[in-house]
Amino acid sequence: MSAPSERTTAKRLPDRASYDAGTIHAILDEGFVCHVGIVEEGYPVVIPTAYARDGDSVLIHGSPASRTLRNAKSEGVEVCLTVTLVDGLVIARSGFHHSMNYRSVVVFGNAKPIDDGAERDAALDLIVETLVPGRLDVVRPMTRNESKGTTVLRLSLAEASAKVRTGGPIDEPEDYELPIWAGVIPVTTEFGNPIVDSALRQNISVPDHISNYHR
Amino acid sequence: MSAPSERTTAKRLPDRASYDAGTIHAILDEGFVCHVGIVEEGYPVVIPTAYARDGDSVLIHGSPASRTLRNAKSEGVEVCLTVTLVDGLVIARSGFHHSMNYRSVVVFGNAKPIDDGAERDAALDLIVETLVPGRLDVVRPMTRNESKGTTVLRLSLAEASAKVRTGGPIDEPEDYELPIWAGVIPVTTEFGNPIVDSALRQNISVPDHISNYHR
Repeated sequence: MSAPSERTTAKRLPDRASYDAGTIHAILDEGFVCHVGIVEEGYPVVIPTAYARDGDSVLIHGSPASRTLRNAKSEGVEVCLTVTLVDGLVIARSGFHHSMNYRSVVVFGNAKPIDDGAERDAALDLIVETLVPGRLDVVRPMTRNESKGTTVLRLSLAEASAKVRTGGPIDEPEDYELPIWAGVIPVTTEFGNPIVDSALRQNISVPDHISNYHR
Repeated sequence: MSAPSERTTAKRLPDRASYDAGTIHAILDEGFVCHVGIVEEGYPVVIPTAYARDGDSVLIHGSPASRTLRNAKSEGVEVCLTVTLVDGLVIARSGFHHSMNYRSVVVFGNAKPIDDGAERDAALDLIVETLVPGRLDVVRPMTRNESKGTTVLRLSLAEASAKVRTGGPIDEPEDYELPIWAGVIPVTTEFGNPIVDSALRQNISVPDHISNYHR
């Protein structure tokens, strides 16, 4: 991870910011939906989509996301990619000091479409394998036509930063004397028991990578 | 909800789009983190922040989000506000048809800071009460200084649309014969047992609106 650029540093609350690659990678690897911001005709557009980290870059599945990403040319598209994991609701003694515990990553940069067929195949496979580890071993392999019709963009993590808030509420000193409960309500993302496709052929049991799914 | 504008309709997959106010309101009311996109010096910026629906508009807590939102003048700031609820990982027989079940709302528009003191007080109170229903009855009331130092923006839902995907995988016709498990892994957001603030005064029990928290 290179030194933070001006636009990366300008946006952060210094005390919660981190440019540590390990922190950034861990947040990106736990999340599975990002919000990608682009500028279309001067206006902001924010779209949720799947992604996968590939070393020091992020791969974005551009096809379902937006026409601008889908039709990106070789010069790329300026994006801001944000991943947010909420860990808790912070309950304070005053309304003003209510907050959230969270871990977020913001990446600024130019997202470039992957034109090389083999590289795009590998990128699409990595997005599937990142979303559902172990899946790639069992699925029907991607065809070249499927890959051809799909836009995948690569975004460097050179301009990435993380923000993390943890712990309890920070109240005004005099408010600690008030008889008001305060603390944190933990927030987690849970993965439930798999629901089988009603069109499934008989005698196919749930594979371990599905029944043991976790992030 | 007025008729969809050109930029609202242009971005949607027609079969999954909805402009129904009930659908849009329900998604906004279940979520509690939005991703706000703005344009800063020509570049997109996407920031997660708290929000609350207030009838046919959304209130955004601008202060922690970004300098641009915090310093918004009376002419307002063009934003795209997106709320995404993930309901499931859709596991298909091919990698290509893996997907997610989700409900999302995208709102385009001009977010205007609330300058009137009393209206801003009410807006901040509503953001707290929306995040934690019942909380407003028990907290130390907001002071005028707290409210004065806070930017709250109002964004109309006139240009809002929802997208919803539900159900199992849609595979290629010939792939249904393959001996590959397919289905959906449900995804939910869970709220755990409250963690008490270590600085809490003795003999304050957990109130019902905290122990019974749900959305």
